Amino acid sequence: MHISQKRKSEMKNKTIHVGLIGFGVVGSGTAKILLENSDILTERSGLKINLKKIADKDIVTDRGIKVPKRLLTTDVNTLFKDPDIDIIVELIGGIHPAKDFIVKAIQHGKHVVTANKALLATEGADIFRASRKAGVEVGFEAAVAGAIPIIKVMKEGLIANRIHAIYGIINGTSNYILTKMTNEEVEFIDALKEAQELGYAEADPTFDIEGIDTAHKLTILATLAYGIPLSFDSVHVEGISNISAQDISFASELGYKVKLLAITKESEGGIELRVHPTMLPGEYLIAKVDGPFNAIYVDGDATGSTLYYGRGAGSVPTGSAVVSDIVDIARNIHKASVGRVPTIPPLSGKKRIKKIDNITSMYYFRFSALDRPGVLSTISGILGKYNISIASVIQKGRRIGEAVPLVVLSHEAQEKNVRKAINEIDRLSVVRGKTVFIRVEDKEAR
Amino acid sequence: MHISQKRKSEMKNKTIHVGLIGFGVVGSGTAKILLENSDILTERSGLKINLKKIADKDIVTDRGIKVPKRLLTTDVNTLFKDPDIDIIVELIGGIHPAKDFIVKAIQHGKHVVTANKALLATEGADIFRASRKAGVEVGFEAAVAGAIPIIKVMKEGLIANRIHAIYGIINGTSNYILTKMTNEEVEFIDALKEAQELGYAEADPTFDIEGIDTAHKLTILATLAYGIPLSFDSVHVEGISNISAQDISFASELGYKVKLLAITKESEGGIELRVHPTMLPGEYLIAKVDGPFNAIYVDGDATGSTLYYGRGAGSVPTGSAVVSDIVDIARNIHKASVGRVPTIPPLSGKKRIKKIDNITSMYYFRFSALDRPGVLSTISGILGKYNISIASVIQKGRRIGEAVPLVVLSHEAQEKNVRKAINEIDRLSVVRGKTVFIRVEDKEAR
Repeated sequence: MHISQKRKSEMKNKTIHVGLIGFGVVGSGTAKILLENSDILTERSGLKINLKKIADKDIVTDRGIKVPKRLLTTDVNTLFKDPDIDIIVELIGGIHPAKDFIVKAIQHGKHVVTANKALLATEGADIFRASRKAGVEVGFEAAVAGAIPIIKVMKEGLIANRIHAIYGIINGTSNYILTKMTNEEVEFIDALKEAQELGYAEADPTFDIEGIDTAHKLTILATLAYGIPLSFDSVHVEGISNISAQDISFASELGYKVKLLAITKESEGGIELRVHPTMLPGEYLIAKVDGPFNAIYVDGDATGSTLYYGRGAGSVPTGSAVVSDIVDIARNIHKASVGRVPTIPPLSGKKRIKKIDNITSMYYFRFSALDRPGVLSTISGILGKYNISIASVIQKGRRIGEAVPLVVLSHEAQEKNVRKAINEIDRLSVVRGKTVFIRVEDKEAR
Repeated sequence: MHISQKRKSEMKNKTIHVGLIGFGVVGSGTAKILLENSDILTERSGLKINLKKIADKDIVTDRGIKVPKRLLTTDVNTLFKDPDIDIIVELIGGIHPAKDFIVKAIQHGKHVVTANKALLATEGADIFRASRKAGVEVGFEAAVAGAIPIIKVMKEGLIANRIHAIYGIINGTSNYILTKMTNEEVEFIDALKEAQELGYAEADPTFDIEGIDTAHKLTILATLAYGIPLSFDSVHVEGISNISAQDISFASELGYKVKLLAITKESEGGIELRVHPTMLPGEYLIAKVDGPFNAIYVDGDATGSTLYYGRGAGSVPTGSAVVSDIVDIARNIHKASVGRVPTIPPLSGKKRIKKIDNITSMYYFRFSALDRPGVLSTISGILGKYNISIASVIQKGRRIGEAVPLVVLSHEAQEKNVRKAINEIDRLSVVRGKTVFIRVEDKEAR
């Protein structure tokens, strides 16, 4: 970029200084963007975003980007104490010391940008309280769905809407594994192994495959959508480690795809908050989101169906979200309009969170039943007793006297009835092994 | 919403008054949202958005929403002269008198929100100049892709990115018609008729089916992406009225879907600006966007592939975008931060627009050639002469001595060479009828 002398001196008053804590994957992506795309940032915002310091325990390892040595420090306190620094970006992840750093930054009057979904979902109330008190902003675009600007979409783009429902594929690891299981008909464990080899899954993949990471992000989205307090502990969470290739194959036969969905919707009796493998009609756009990609379907009362798609992780994709927050806050600093868009909407305790027992859904059941006359009648009798009516049945592979899969798709039923019915069915002498059930979303998420 | 007395008096200073010009489809959707969702707007923004006046030539027809009679006027000047009104929303469409109303509003110091893509694409320079001079904002989220907050995404969410390319399905009418032609194997004219019956196409569908509406929207997107002046006249525009069921069927056989795409990308030699039917690999997410829906694929250098999907038209979906602009401006009025995000980025003449002749693309050709030995050799010889190399060929239906379709898919070739080759081929005595060609995008838009 060519800046004239006059413009240079003008820019002095328009320079916003940023301190970065954490020079890992997202930290280096953020630094890369701030350094390499500073021309367009200035052109578009009229402001100069200056990366002033980077703090990390390790300032030796090569991150593949050219960073002037003087920017690097192992002493995080330099950042808090630097009066020039306006915005502190926390990208170390985890609860501690991330929380302490953020709180300290806030207490020093710094604005904060973070990608830390685990922290916000579980300790966000403390952070947002501190930031409100200090009159600083907390940006967290990068905490949900990486490159996709879903936080801005929820807080600003869709502000006119009452949100009916959100369905999110917001964990790339799980989606990669499920896609592989679907396309190559392999079992979970093999798909996981490949995901680890390709760097899509961590050595300890628990957070990703057990739905915890998804639940963290859902917690944040639900707060934005419904103004409910951050409610991570109330999210019903099931992961994908129990999904078998067989179930994916039956789903496919029935026209469905299996996705790990984050679901929040307002229905009679409250706000649903749940993360679980879900069968979706194959023709839905969100069902077609494959590989490590993320997508969030948002149904607003005015917009109807909308969907936002992109990379949910990665160095520069997530860095893109971090930098958008930095610019947003920089603009507010420059225009003295801090708090222009509240960090989170005013929270109210008016809306109740609905227990998983009280939701209604369609269900896929795979019973492991002896291939014997009368078995289907017995099972469907029990389902009927609990008001679970059958939409379709697949019975395959005749092996008289042996256990074969009996697949049943139900109409809308109540979860607590489903659990009772399964409990009763699993005690039948003709049933071998635990019944598998997967919730089916068939009316929304188009 | 329950507002206490204390809060009521506080809100007096936080009330933003809106005047609406045009009480048609989008106008009534906007009014509906402002009236029916005013509680959530206030809750989320802390501001009261008050719809103060609606001007329309017709204030008698029932729009299906309850509007207090005192709000309605046939005299648009009341709005300009009302000192309370902060924001004027123009939703009458067309160039005149819309432009005059907008300019007048600006001259009266009002901020403006408009959904008028035709006006912005062709006369936007005047409007933006006037608004800059007057220090007011012009919101146009609703001008592109209806409910999808793509303007905010481009201006703010993706601010950190150099944009590689945008591919947009941004005309619902055309996409509905192409979807119908694809799924039901009907000809254009029949699909158009049904679109008209269902209200997806207007009595005079020219703007939609000939790509003009798409080009208007592309013009706006390209200005946001590349900082080029609004360049509607430089957009290469082809519509879908010449697409035949036969071509869609061949495309399908080759694994492609035909979509009317708005394309802008930065490539060697400048910015491409083009609207034309395009073949896309069927597995691309954007190729799966069907019916009247819109989707915009944006490839940024940091984000990589992203996609935004939703309704591109309609009363409340478009109203959602209008209201998001109103709230955005209201926040700036309240925080005295007008101009916080420039209406459009600073424009530069540095980037050249690339002529269609100079683009390179893969191509689908359908020659109408006599089924005679040596014909393929002659045609491929001419293609070769112009550096057009063949990727695959479909030749069907042997009818010796008669004209049969000969379908050729090329590798990357230059458009001007393609035109020269077709010109030469169409003059061959063995070729009957004009050669059809459709550009193929096979490397991007994943």
